Amino acid sequence: MIFPAWSCPHHDGSQIYVPEPNPKLGDKVDVFLRVPRMSDVTSAWVRVVINGEPELVQTVVDRQDEHDKWLRATLPVINPVVSYRWLLDSGPYNYQWLNGAGLHDHDVADAFDFRLSTYDPPPQWATGTMYQIFPDRFAKSVDRSTPAWAIPAAWDDLVIGEGPDTPRQYYGGDLDGITAHLDHIASLGVGTIYLTPFFPAESNHRYNASTFDRVDPLLGGDAAMARLAAAAHARGMHLMGDLTTNHCGDTHEWFQNALADPNAPEVNFFFFTNYPHAYDAWWNLKEMPIFDHRSTELRRRLYDGPDSVVARWLGPHALNAWRIDVANMTGIHGDINLSHEVATTIRHTMAQVTTESFLQAESNHDASRDLLGDGYQGTMNYAAFTRPLWQWLLPPQQRPYIHTKYPALPNLPGRLVVGAMRELSGVTPWQATLHAMNLIGSHDTHRVASLLGNPQLVDVAFGILAAYPGIPMIYYGDEIGLATMGPEYARIPMPWAHPERWDQRRLALTRALFGTRAQSVALQRGGLRWLHIGDDALTFLREAPGETVLVHAARANHTPIQIPTAVLGSELVGLAGTANLRANMDGMITLPAEGPAFGMWQLCKNVAG
Amino acid sequence: MIFPAWSCPHHDGSQIYVPEPNPKLGDKVDVFLRVPRMSDVTSAWVRVVINGEPELVQTVVDRQDEHDKWLRATLPVINPVVSYRWLLDSGPYNYQWLNGAGLHDHDVADAFDFRLSTYDPPPQWATGTMYQIFPDRFAKSVDRSTPAWAIPAAWDDLVIGEGPDTPRQYYGGDLDGITAHLDHIASLGVGTIYLTPFFPAESNHRYNASTFDRVDPLLGGDAAMARLAAAAHARGMHLMGDLTTNHCGDTHEWFQNALADPNAPEVNFFFFTNYPHAYDAWWNLKEMPIFDHRSTELRRRLYDGPDSVVARWLGPHALNAWRIDVANMTGIHGDINLSHEVATTIRHTMAQVTTESFLQAESNHDASRDLLGDGYQGTMNYAAFTRPLWQWLLPPQQRPYIHTKYPALPNLPGRLVVGAMRELSGVTPWQATLHAMNLIGSHDTHRVASLLGNPQLVDVAFGILAAYPGIPMIYYGDEIGLATMGPEYARIPMPWAHPERWDQRRLALTRALFGTRAQSVALQRGGLRWLHIGDDALTFLREAPGETVLVHAARANHTPIQIPTAVLGSELVGLAGTANLRANMDGMITLPAEGPAFGMWQLCKNVAG
Repeated sequence: MIFPAWSCPHHDGSQIYVPEPNPKLGDKVDVFLRVPRMSDVTSAWVRVVINGEPELVQTVVDRQDEHDKWLRATLPVINPVVSYRWLLDSGPYNYQWLNGAGLHDHDVADAFDFRLSTYDPPPQWATGTMYQIFPDRFAKSVDRSTPAWAIPAAWDDLVIGEGPDTPRQYYGGDLDGITAHLDHIASLGVGTIYLTPFFPAESNHRYNASTFDRVDPLLGGDAAMARLAAAAHARGMHLMGDLTTNHCGDTHEWFQNALADPNAPEVNFFFFTNYPHAYDAWWNLKEMPIFDHRSTELRRRLYDGPDSVVARWLGPHALNAWRIDVANMTGIHGDINLSHEVATTIRHTMAQVTTESFLQAESNHDASRDLLGDGYQGTMNYAAFTRPLWQWLLPPQQRPYIHTKYPALPNLPGRLVVGAMRELSGVTPWQATLHAMNLIGSHDTHRVASLLGNPQLVDVAFGILAAYPGIPMIYYGDEIGLATMGPEYARIPMPWAHPERWDQRRLALTRALFGTRAQSVALQRGGLRWLHIGDDALTFLREAPGETVLVHAARANHTPIQIPTAVLGSELVGLAGTANLRANMDGMITLPAEGPAFGMWQLCKNVAG
Repeated sequence: MIFPAWSCPHHDGSQIYVPEPNPKLGDKVDVFLRVPRMSDVTSAWVRVVINGEPELVQTVVDRQDEHDKWLRATLPVINPVVSYRWLLDSGPYNYQWLNGAGLHDHDVADAFDFRLSTYDPPPQWATGTMYQIFPDRFAKSVDRSTPAWAIPAAWDDLVIGEGPDTPRQYYGGDLDGITAHLDHIASLGVGTIYLTPFFPAESNHRYNASTFDRVDPLLGGDAAMARLAAAAHARGMHLMGDLTTNHCGDTHEWFQNALADPNAPEVNFFFFTNYPHAYDAWWNLKEMPIFDHRSTELRRRLYDGPDSVVARWLGPHALNAWRIDVANMTGIHGDINLSHEVATTIRHTMAQVTTESFLQAESNHDASRDLLGDGYQGTMNYAAFTRPLWQWLLPPQQRPYIHTKYPALPNLPGRLVVGAMRELSGVTPWQATLHAMNLIGSHDTHRVASLLGNPQLVDVAFGILAAYPGIPMIYYGDEIGLATMGPEYARIPMPWAHPERWDQRRLALTRALFGTRAQSVALQRGGLRWLHIGDDALTFLREAPGETVLVHAARANHTPIQIPTAVLGSELVGLAGTANLRANMDGMITLPAEGPAFGMWQLCKNVAG
């Protein structure tokens, strides 16, 4: 017998199901399972791993109403990470496991277990919407002379998107330019501004830093950073910087010291294979020598302790968070693997400065090994969000995202897309899903407007970005519909002087979606319960105590979906411009069957229990 | 379109697909993909993780014949463990991933990646069939006086299967008893004898050792061990001991020293919570205090270096291998997790004594974190073999295996059973699957003859035990059909004096199956390619260069299965008593459709490529 998704038992790491998501060692923690009345599940256990050994914990009925039975189990917190899954009994010859990837009708590996962490949680502000700025291209406050490495560009010039001149094309955006446009950013409901690197470097992307000691004077220097931080913080916004702990530029003072003097302490910061001529570099790009994290002096300077780069740029006059570039590679080199030590040391250093700090990782793929809570607290979510979403929304017959990592992105039906999202989210703890940076475009991708083409499909992408668990990241300019293909072509200067190039409909929708999210606990921190997983339509709930939001996305016209009022109540209040919905006389809510379309509604009846 | 299993692309870690399974850092390794002509796969890549970053490697066509196309990719061995999976392209809008768990039509996590390890491989002898002996119950060479802790039993007495007297019931089996019966053991095609603990202890199971310095005098002492080892080694057989590195007995000399003197070095070997009265113990059983592996002195005495217990019992006059009791818990205690350090240290110590040594772990569940090759080299395979197999073969409506870990074992169809086997094998490297201890019964389970009831179902269990990848372990007495329910009831003395109690049909079949295995490279080291996965019938190939064996198991009568001669050739030579098979005139092999039944055949045509 096939049950509709809304009749399936459900658990996730959100507050309704785990009231205390950040327990301490020695605590006991209640976890809850929602068993809809329509389910055939008769009883359940929790399998929890204690000191390496799985144990079964019995559940009790905590409460029940006409819609749901709630089962409760109490788990002892013996180890720093509590790994558990549910064993569901549904009659004499049938059982199912429920883990982070969903329901399974046979025995499963532990990889997708739910996980509770005793490590300090990210700060509350961390779930606010992010806005990513590539400083050279966002806004310019003043004309500066062009540095020697650069090819000057006027603000309206076309971007050089490939070839050796691409990193040298210099538009001259700066930090005071950002400060001048905080009204625009705030109007989008943004909580955190994410700046790609601001240290001096001989490129427009600045991922090849010459020093970590000061803000690039081309960006306005340290004083401009202090002005930006003060202005952003005054608005309640936070700042995230972008640090390369994997490598620096070959112009970096540490690397230059190493080249100049074989006895310099910095020689041990790098992997020289034939000093001073040959050394290991990121992707064999000689301008980016990689760091050898076995050096304690490197660690001390870069991220270990209060005098480190990581610590010094945190605080009231600067950053609240770091995004670590290519975190997935940092510390791993041949038979050396210090990845975990690097992440936990950075995290420890940041927590020593302020417990309100937040640590993000760049990764393009399954980062589960990094996301147990003692190091990186979230990751750029290409794997569990961006790629599946693109696969759903890309027009069939279009295979545009050719990349060294994948030959092409095929168009896939919703069933497979949600399968990928559940698998790649399920392999990480809920706290990591909640703090993943979801994105539909970045400085490393095409512009979403061009990638998807149809503006209604872009609406759906923005809607899901606002409504799915995680931290939505808006790439500067996507909110006004900037469009072009090719990741580096897409680093388009923000056309402040050309309002005629702004997609005002896109801007209004973006403001509505993320403004709504900024006011909604359910959208920021609520659980995720799938109600319908179709090829062309996806429907889910975001559930928090006291607030539940229904989200419905369609990539095309589809068979009408009906969900009982027992699940949704009889009145749905549209959010962010969505029209209200009301139950039919037969006790069903019929969702809009047109597509591409996106809608979300607040439930009036609190069915969250 | 659904393709039959035999038309699916295939890869595993066996020699046909990975000619060099144990590369060194800096090597380049060829990996091969078999693409049957009937498949719609047009091209493929290998996604390999290098220094934490996934890269796509292109494949080339290595060769092709009328049946298969073979794609080859060359992978650089940059890190100690090479993690990879295949990306298959089958037309413009379709792709699939192939990993250790099988084919997937959407993006997947890395947990099931294929893995190649640069760590030293287990010795060749390790894949020989094992025979598990519980020394108190196998054979007695001489009458000895009963120790103070024990309740004496005559050899034919009934086993006390539950209650406080269970561990005290003493039959007096000993090591010379085993030596006297090596003919019987050798007749089963056994390569390795696995002895549960032989150190002195105040119980018949001896998992609560009083010392690790000598063989229990009740078993004949050190001299009897030397006699057994010499006799076994002379026959080319190997010996595996059973060590508790997680705990010892409360009668152990180290624990007694700790109790007697608060300044004794042994105080730090244990977790005293209120010295000397209260301490942490395994499952809170006070007679088994657990070890604190932070103590370097404990490590030195127990497993670190040439003077350790682990080292001293290896060698020509004693053991070739260790099985580590509750390895899954060893070293894990609250916020302490030294599990990996314990395993790698034991492995290192053993390799220092002899590279021909072998290290096994006890685990009842997903042990993938322990099986990357630098520590434990295999595990007792309850998770990926025993439980799924039982679930397939248990008579419906029978739920006998009530255990603290699981409420019951439901009967499941073959599709789900193979799903569990693939998932739980796929999460470990092929080398771990090849060296997993597969079992259908042990000193911790019911007797398989009672559990399954129907002798034909037991035949199927024995057949799959002999034919599935891994090290088959025969629990002493199962080969003559000893029968009873209840794990401790099942520790029945071997009825040497009562041939009328021996199931001679079972014995002959066991000898045929494991004798065949002992002669077959394909059964010992070949790959695993599924040909048919039905509810009631399972069919697979074991493939090695020059030898391929077809295995077919049915739990009931089933629809006849036809497989083309393109896959199997036209002549199949029955093994271990199975009748030969020959193709029909239409070019198909029809497998026997009766069940319960087991058969295996050698392919005459070498279709392994």
